[in-house]
Amino acid sequence: MNDGTPNRFDAAQLHRQIVGILSAWGMPPEPAAATATVMVETDLSGIDSHGVSMLMLYEKLLSEDRLRLDAVPRVVRDAPAFAVVDAGAGLGHPAGLFAMDLAVRKAAASGIGAVAVGNSHHLGALGYYVRSAAQRGLIALMTTTTRTPVVAALGGTTPILGTNPIAFAAPRMAGGELVVDMSTSVVAMNKVKAYALSGRDLPAGWVSDRAGSTITDASLAYSLLTTQEATISPLGGPSTETGGHKGFGLSLMVHVLSASISGAALPLHDGPSDDLGHFVLVIDPGSVAEGGAPAGYVDELVHLMTRDEPGVVLPGEPETEARASRSRDGIPLPESLLEHLRAICGRAGTDMILTPLG
Amino acid sequence: MNDGTPNRFDAAQLHRQIVGILSAWGMPPEPAAATATVMVETDLSGIDSHGVSMLMLYEKLLSEDRLRLDAVPRVVRDAPAFAVVDAGAGLGHPAGLFAMDLAVRKAAASGIGAVAVGNSHHLGALGYYVRSAAQRGLIALMTTTTRTPVVAALGGTTPILGTNPIAFAAPRMAGGELVVDMSTSVVAMNKVKAYALSGRDLPAGWVSDRAGSTITDASLAYSLLTTQEATISPLGGPSTETGGHKGFGLSLMVHVLSASISGAALPLHDGPSDDLGHFVLVIDPGSVAEGGAPAGYVDELVHLMTRDEPGVVLPGEPETEARASRSRDGIPLPESLLEHLRAICGRAGTDMILTPLG
Repeated sequence: MNDGTPNRFDAAQLHRQIVGILSAWGMPPEPAAATATVMVETDLSGIDSHGVSMLMLYEKLLSEDRLRLDAVPRVVRDAPAFAVVDAGAGLGHPAGLFAMDLAVRKAAASGIGAVAVGNSHHLGALGYYVRSAAQRGLIALMTTTTRTPVVAALGGTTPILGTNPIAFAAPRMAGGELVVDMSTSVVAMNKVKAYALSGRDLPAGWVSDRAGSTITDASLAYSLLTTQEATISPLGGPSTETGGHKGFGLSLMVHVLSASISGAALPLHDGPSDDLGHFVLVIDPGSVAEGGAPAGYVDELVHLMTRDEPGVVLPGEPETEARASRSRDGIPLPESLLEHLRAICGRAGTDMILTPLG
Repeated sequence: MNDGTPNRFDAAQLHRQIVGILSAWGMPPEPAAATATVMVETDLSGIDSHGVSMLMLYEKLLSEDRLRLDAVPRVVRDAPAFAVVDAGAGLGHPAGLFAMDLAVRKAAASGIGAVAVGNSHHLGALGYYVRSAAQRGLIALMTTTTRTPVVAALGGTTPILGTNPIAFAAPRMAGGELVVDMSTSVVAMNKVKAYALSGRDLPAGWVSDRAGSTITDASLAYSLLTTQEATISPLGGPSTETGGHKGFGLSLMVHVLSASISGAALPLHDGPSDDLGHFVLVIDPGSVAEGGAPAGYVDELVHLMTRDEPGVVLPGEPETEARASRSRDGIPLPESLLEHLRAICGRAGTDMILTPLG
């Protein structure tokens, strides 16, 4: 199209394209297929920042010899309901799937199961993993450290913590799942980038310079963030008055859960790989409650919040709607991204097979 | 004193006073002593809203025949690493302590342990419970539902959810613990009350009326909140631009974790007791990591955040400082609270033994 509306692409074709690239990079077939599934589902859910567009980062990590695409996640410490997994400096998706699967099995035996992962890389959007557990009737919580320091301790101006997301999912009887998937910063970095690209000013309180002053020029803010000369506020904003100390506390909680037990990298570390840490907790409500009771409870809770309130948007609802429309109409990919993918295919020596839906 | 500065009281004497009242109300000695310890420690930590001042609510619940002070928490469903506890409509403190102790024992056997509590009441500040686990070298997460609906679903204006707090603690090598204890609303209700008492205007975005307009008159806001004609914003504020959808998601997560498995009350329920739900998770890092490694990790994380930043205040630090000064100088109790305590003692038929420190 020539009007600036991105062309749309079939999810199955996009999956084949990603598998082609990952395979050309040396990833074995099984993890390549699983990783491509996570990425395509993320694009289907409308979370464009964490799907196929991440291939650019992965290529960069490969070129810097930081990423081992043939790594096999392995259990290095094991307790009945808890384990530590070493991701072998591989991509985070196979490690995240391995950890979730292990936690699910431990929960089946013990009622709950948890896994801490270390020595890992970016694993996409956490929502995919926790939703997959909720689809099996389980409750799941997941956190991860992130690679770029952008959030300062409250009262400080040095970027130390990442956007440190937390995700949670619970099953529903009515079909679908309740899915919360959020960074613990007031916004994700890619949202600042989106404001910069569209020339909009940032709301006050999102980004601050090293003197602690708010920056509303989105292009300047994004540029300073990439060089660690600015910070994104924690959820709650830059002051305690608006709850910034709570977002800071959540960010710390996510970092400690994700990295302290697995021994993943501290912030500002400068090692041979990103060494991210993830944490997965799975609760099997069926171990202690009547089958389906918690799912029915969630339905009633949702009913209470929405029965008189047409304007309420539940966490996960925008993603569910995106999945429906994109499964039907295809996934929009802007021309700038397609150009990157063509170049990646060229460098990897694999075919660019993406063709727009007619 | 006559200058408005509250008199200060010895912690051990306050403990005896609370035990006296709880015993006169019919609570057996052991849970009365344990409950008084949680309350006094909370006052020592400077969290005046959740300590001895809560006796007024507990008396009201008793007078309405909603609270069973002789209840004994019991395990009603059990899995190796997970259990559901029925608090028997008792006070939340004995149930919270029972659940934490059970989760600690399960974590010792399985690496992690979790307990969901139902049929409970107010249990004070969560920080006490998670800190007690961290003092034993464990990592703990705790959530609870709360009794008064004050937070609307994002996009709605009906108060449905409580302030739904979440607490987290991890051990440190350097002594002390990292403790996060926060409501998932932008502020707690008692903070609105404090603004009203001091005649200050509320910041915009804290409280909204049923039309969705912000209320800055603190007295009006507090009054409307008590009659469910206003709402407190979730953490992140009243709009998605400032992250309100994230605080709403966290609040939902807390409610589902705390109440869906134990079958505790849905919001707006109208039963014979408050029927609150709590959730406790304990992780024993020693089950899968070198002894003390996570605590050393937390120390390094704190060092990174504070080495160049004199203004940084860590979660839990104000409470640690309050504990030091109040342990030394006594706990300040305003005359208005002392009057309430005198009246409570009179109605309960027990002596008011509190005497100010000289």
